[in-house]
Amino acid sequence: MKSSPGDPSQLSASAAARLIAERKLTSLELTQACLERIRERDTTVRAWTLIDQRQALAQARERDAETANEKFVRGPLHGVPIGVKDIIDTSSLITSYGSPIYRLHRPRRNAACVAKAIDAGAIVLGKTVTTEFAYRKPGKTANPHDPTHTPGGSSSGSAAAVADWHVPLAFGTQTSGSVIRPASYCGIHGFKPSFGAIERAGVKQLAATFDTVGLFARDVVDLKLFFRAVRVPARADTPEDEPEAPAKPRIGLCRTHQWRAAEESARQVLQSAADRLASAGAIVEEFELPDAFIPLNEAHATIMAVDAVRSFADELENQYSLLSRQLRALAEHGQAVDRARDIIARTLAAACRERFDRIMPNYDALLTPAAPGEAPPGLGSTGDPVFNRVWTLLHVPCVALPVARGHGNLPIGVQLIGGRGQDMKLLAVADWVSRHLAEAGAGTA
Amino acid sequence: MKSSPGDPSQLSASAAARLIAERKLTSLELTQACLERIRERDTTVRAWTLIDQRQALAQARERDAETANEKFVRGPLHGVPIGVKDIIDTSSLITSYGSPIYRLHRPRRNAACVAKAIDAGAIVLGKTVTTEFAYRKPGKTANPHDPTHTPGGSSSGSAAAVADWHVPLAFGTQTSGSVIRPASYCGIHGFKPSFGAIERAGVKQLAATFDTVGLFARDVVDLKLFFRAVRVPARADTPEDEPEAPAKPRIGLCRTHQWRAAEESARQVLQSAADRLASAGAIVEEFELPDAFIPLNEAHATIMAVDAVRSFADELENQYSLLSRQLRALAEHGQAVDRARDIIARTLAAACRERFDRIMPNYDALLTPAAPGEAPPGLGSTGDPVFNRVWTLLHVPCVALPVARGHGNLPIGVQLIGGRGQDMKLLAVADWVSRHLAEAGAGTA
Repeated sequence: MKSSPGDPSQLSASAAARLIAERKLTSLELTQACLERIRERDTTVRAWTLIDQRQALAQARERDAETANEKFVRGPLHGVPIGVKDIIDTSSLITSYGSPIYRLHRPRRNAACVAKAIDAGAIVLGKTVTTEFAYRKPGKTANPHDPTHTPGGSSSGSAAAVADWHVPLAFGTQTSGSVIRPASYCGIHGFKPSFGAIERAGVKQLAATFDTVGLFARDVVDLKLFFRAVRVPARADTPEDEPEAPAKPRIGLCRTHQWRAAEESARQVLQSAADRLASAGAIVEEFELPDAFIPLNEAHATIMAVDAVRSFADELENQYSLLSRQLRALAEHGQAVDRARDIIARTLAAACRERFDRIMPNYDALLTPAAPGEAPPGLGSTGDPVFNRVWTLLHVPCVALPVARGHGNLPIGVQLIGGRGQDMKLLAVADWVSRHLAEAGAGTA
Repeated sequence: MKSSPGDPSQLSASAAARLIAERKLTSLELTQACLERIRERDTTVRAWTLIDQRQALAQARERDAETANEKFVRGPLHGVPIGVKDIIDTSSLITSYGSPIYRLHRPRRNAACVAKAIDAGAIVLGKTVTTEFAYRKPGKTANPHDPTHTPGGSSSGSAAAVADWHVPLAFGTQTSGSVIRPASYCGIHGFKPSFGAIERAGVKQLAATFDTVGLFARDVVDLKLFFRAVRVPARADTPEDEPEAPAKPRIGLCRTHQWRAAEESARQVLQSAADRLASAGAIVEEFELPDAFIPLNEAHATIMAVDAVRSFADELENQYSLLSRQLRALAEHGQAVDRARDIIARTLAAACRERFDRIMPNYDALLTPAAPGEAPPGLGSTGDPVFNRVWTLLHVPCVALPVARGHGNLPIGVQLIGGRGQDMKLLAVADWVSRHLAEAGAGTA
């Protein structure tokens, strides 16, 4: 699956940005290499809805001119091509939200996160496949490790594009498990930050209570680079934004109340990762979520369905025939929720968020499954977000790390969870974890 | 200022909807009367950015056909013309957000609240003037009571249109005081519901922490009608949604920490309203907000500025030359806020919301100024939201009620505040208050 050695498309974003700034690589070379890789592979992977090659190359030449003539770089992503999930508005590229209703929709402006990436020098190579409205109806994308398997979703194209060396970075979004699950299935790094940590103005709304812009990359260093460039606030970083991982991170091994849903391979991968981290010096303790958290998976489903009815008021009223059966079922669920149940779910969610705020100071991170196992076969479903919903509901940052391959030789990741708002700290811990798992060897379940 | 007696444009929405359902009035007659009124008056008031007369009349004929042929009404707003603030997306009408950046912007879909109003039978007559991005740069609208004075803002056109009998109902939005203040200045009823009580998908974002869709009408009964038609959730009303006002409502007279900003006339109007309500049987007690609430006005300004920088990432980066000095100043403020200050403001806001939740069970409503006084002269500023910011920050429902005229013979309102999520209860109390103030006579400061 890998591109040839020495090919710039294999570079990390951090390495590429450094080489471009030092004028040892041009953005044009990098962009052309990415486009070449896409030409080779995308008939199989189908990660993209739209690529504007002419525009991307023109932007790359502009970035190169800035670097060459003025020794100027716009920001940490100067000259680096990125993918943008097609649920996120781009003013220069049609944005269809995975729905025929928006087939030729051309937003007036870029989403805030896209504007920040461009401001930091990134080149928007194109739009990546999303499931319909970031919910369940799959798009056309295949898993790059085995095109008969799903890449996961809803950020299917972004995960597959990064995994398959089309671009080093891509935007996704997560409402249930739409960043962490596809990252795990595609064997790459995914980051769903704390709720609100990346501005979502210009992202098509699915469930306002949960929708979060997330990021894909091939290593933690790149996740940090990307996150720092696009997150709120606008202010320059302050020193406390670069926490160092402790020498002996305290890690809570959390099997979750959904443990029964984990396949044997995912269980083994999690245990093996925990063992290796303990050997590397981490303090690993078993951690059980309180019983009060048991109904959260269900609460997430309730709130999401109610929110979706609100978000899609216009589409449900006026474009019902163009909605998938999955979205219609979600809306029917939401319409059937009575108010008392909705209020109970939201009140419990708020209470558990606060309770979790009091738990997390005991740990540097929790270690938990990213998905039930390897990517399931077939492209008819994007898999089960059962190991993601609770964390999304809690508004906490989550990182997916690729650590092993399962019996089907497809990737299996693990997930690290941080405290609400502790995004940079979680990324620092993820960096430590990632390095120590890599040193111990990739491992196979 | 009033239209001639017997003119359907003088009807309340509730009365008009009833007559249309009973086939004693056609939607076409009503819509034509509204259009006629606008033709007469809008060269002076300038409430509208855009009216699509042909489309409105066609819709009115469709609603009439449904009523005549099938004895069918779509919902509680069947055949009633409404105005939509031009910060809210409409797919059939250009939506410019008060900014030249969006001069010819035609959104793909209706905002969720507009879809719900249309679903309930409303006819969108046109778009009403907003300040630029619902912030401070005024539009062209004049106060219908005296066109040399501001109508208030940012929902300038909606307030003026309802006050001047162009339409019985209009949508606004409030981030600081953009519904309650213009309602007070224009002598009508305004309702800013609890944060999130009306879905805001499809409303151009100014400050995500505060933006709330609100409503204008000429009486409380119409506010109730409109609110029930467009609020979340989708579920049918349950009996507890129709609370009755208590026979002796407990009203806290709240001068607020901003009392110094109230002009003499506003002070007299508030005291006089309190006295009249006490005479009518209400239990009126002085109520002081806790000292912890003193910094909330400042906290609101801080959070709003930080939020705005996030919301307008694209416009600030790519269209700076087309932004007003007011919006630029807001962004500069937001960019200068350091993270610690932002976090303190948000933490205090959250704590005060919870504290206020514990205060409000002691009262049926608080009675407080709606604005510092009468509408100030000139169209260069929309006035001061000093009596609105704290309530918007607290996410509580607010109703503006017109109760008197000041020394300049311009309207002065008062404001009622309810507990978070207690929207229908507040409207029930507002109904009681409104009837008893009316019975006691309109009064003049």
